[in-house]
Amino acid sequence: MSDVKEKALQVSKEKGGKIEINSKVKIESMEDLAIAYTPGVAAVSSAIAENKEDVYTYTSKRNLVAVVTDGSAVLGLGNIGPEAAIPVMEGKAALFKRFADVDAVPISLDTNDVEEIISHVKAIAPSFGGINLEDISAPRCFEIERRLKESLDIPVFHDDQHGTAIVVLAGIYNALKLADKKIDEVKVVVNGGGAAGVAISKRLLTAGVKRILLVDKEGIVSSDNPNLEERHEEIASMTNQDNIKGDLQEALKDADVFVGVSAPNVLKKEWISSMNDKPIIFAMANPEPEINPQDAKDGGAFIVGTGRSDFPNQINNVLAFPGIFRGALDARASNITDDMQIAAAKGIASVISDEELSVDNIIPNVFTPGVASIVADSVKHAKSE
Amino acid sequence: MSDVKEKALQVSKEKGGKIEINSKVKIESMEDLAIAYTPGVAAVSSAIAENKEDVYTYTSKRNLVAVVTDGSAVLGLGNIGPEAAIPVMEGKAALFKRFADVDAVPISLDTNDVEEIISHVKAIAPSFGGINLEDISAPRCFEIERRLKESLDIPVFHDDQHGTAIVVLAGIYNALKLADKKIDEVKVVVNGGGAAGVAISKRLLTAGVKRILLVDKEGIVSSDNPNLEERHEEIASMTNQDNIKGDLQEALKDADVFVGVSAPNVLKKEWISSMNDKPIIFAMANPEPEINPQDAKDGGAFIVGTGRSDFPNQINNVLAFPGIFRGALDARASNITDDMQIAAAKGIASVISDEELSVDNIIPNVFTPGVASIVADSVKHAKSE
Repeated sequence: MSDVKEKALQVSKEKGGKIEINSKVKIESMEDLAIAYTPGVAAVSSAIAENKEDVYTYTSKRNLVAVVTDGSAVLGLGNIGPEAAIPVMEGKAALFKRFADVDAVPISLDTNDVEEIISHVKAIAPSFGGINLEDISAPRCFEIERRLKESLDIPVFHDDQHGTAIVVLAGIYNALKLADKKIDEVKVVVNGGGAAGVAISKRLLTAGVKRILLVDKEGIVSSDNPNLEERHEEIASMTNQDNIKGDLQEALKDADVFVGVSAPNVLKKEWISSMNDKPIIFAMANPEPEINPQDAKDGGAFIVGTGRSDFPNQINNVLAFPGIFRGALDARASNITDDMQIAAAKGIASVISDEELSVDNIIPNVFTPGVASIVADSVKHAKSE
Repeated sequence: MSDVKEKALQVSKEKGGKIEINSKVKIESMEDLAIAYTPGVAAVSSAIAENKEDVYTYTSKRNLVAVVTDGSAVLGLGNIGPEAAIPVMEGKAALFKRFADVDAVPISLDTNDVEEIISHVKAIAPSFGGINLEDISAPRCFEIERRLKESLDIPVFHDDQHGTAIVVLAGIYNALKLADKKIDEVKVVVNGGGAAGVAISKRLLTAGVKRILLVDKEGIVSSDNPNLEERHEEIASMTNQDNIKGDLQEALKDADVFVGVSAPNVLKKEWISSMNDKPIIFAMANPEPEINPQDAKDGGAFIVGTGRSDFPNQINNVLAFPGIFRGALDARASNITDDMQIAAAKGIASVISDEELSVDNIIPNVFTPGVASIVADSVKHAKSE
């Protein structure tokens, strides 16, 4: 077992998990008790009973996010159940606090049923200012998120889909700036037909990319394919307008950008030479990318990003979700719209100044000070527009 | 508006509620991030996936309690809804932390339906080590608690019923010691036919009291009353063996103990003289007790307790619930049994030494150091028996 894994087990055991609930009020006298609890609390409850909106003034709802999972798609481990998912949800809660002062609670649900999950999340919503859906498997995650967004008046955000998409877009903004290309003129190949690939394709479309090819194991997704999977029907209608057929190698011809959320070593370095000039390669399969970054460079890549911290240009969704929720909560947004997500991507990209921008520095490090607050401000600004 | 209420509003507004979620792990480097989140967290999740019991070793579940309400019976304010109930749940969470280092999360449910509440609590249970039901109206609270206890393997405890009952029992233990009376020989009148009155009666029965009269607005509850309410059928069969009829005044004749969870000023001081010698009066209606403590003394009361902090002998459930959950969590109890609750009462009573014990000091103050840990130890010991 690796050192990091051993340490993770050791820390979790020693501390008994990664989060704790603290009181923000002192309770050291009978008067303190009367203010924090009865009878004083009756005034606070009465105020909210009279005006429900006051729940945002007087309670933790304004800063409290539920990190909800059903344990069905946890990291690469699959459907390991609600208990085994808790460490990931706690980790997320710890990151929410560390990077954006958001209070987040792990809620691991004991069901994989779509209707039940929707019902439970709706039921607990009064306590929370936002819902972060996490590690719920496709295609259930799509319907769960869509229907919760429709019925709740607080933001609902499936980070596995949208978080990565936002950081990819941020990286593309800066990479295109260096390559001196326009977003509405480039051809992007997204490799990987799962939830992340679809979400990235959609985000790029809303950001102005006109030509996208989504490639899954069967080849380029195309709306005139009689064997088109139901989950790809919508995205097929929005991509590959010329109904190009073929595999990844075919798709890459004249492409400007490769975005991989697929499997290790599926991108051959020879294929990069068939791409347009200054090829941009985001190879984000974990833990082994679609191509080794040095091989990609050797194959002619102009910029290479991965999901890993030991290579330059780490595409890490920790850059996005804390600031996005911070901004949405502060703006009392009822939804995290496309505009807000695109603004978040621009915010992340803007952290790297033109002077700092280079092929090995297109995206901030998660510890770069101020990332979350810039993202939050961008989100708030987009909401108010 | 009173000073306390103004301060409660002000504090809640300034701080944005009373609780926050903090990270117990530092995240200041890429290595920290790898330990707290991916890839390190995969080892922790994998360990739990292999052995579900390890969720208690590696996660916050072992110290995390959901304070669950549907907002239907909040303080004296009635069914004010889930949002307006949050300040009370937060206050409770703050007390859990302050007095027993228990991490507690307010969960306000957007439904009053019994089946739905049971379903939602069961669904969220994997994240939690215990469930504190709070401010759920009778009679729904009985079925909800009973069925959750049956189906969950973590403790479920409706504090409104059992917390007060435990502290009343603690007070009675010490009061009887001073009065030199035996618990199985005294006659107790419980005034108030709601959930608290029934719960107190049941707790006293399990503790060995043989003669109890429960009195509601219609008079002494009696199993041969053709108009007996359904909610009183069970308790009627356990009390008033002689089927005595009459009102509170009649019930009090030769009684040793009066326990009031009813309404202000319903106990007349003249009636106290009809009680047995050394009458013990717990007048716990809030904010105005069933009888003013001085009037009770003038009427011949030996010991007087109330729910208020500005009179001696405050019967306050804050003495019970933090230590009870601390003990149950530490013992990994799957239930908080009668024995554990009686042990908690004995633990609370034991905090007052024989030397300290007096008619105006039968019960500890909530700030008396060590109360919660003595209660926790008592509960743990009772569990292991």
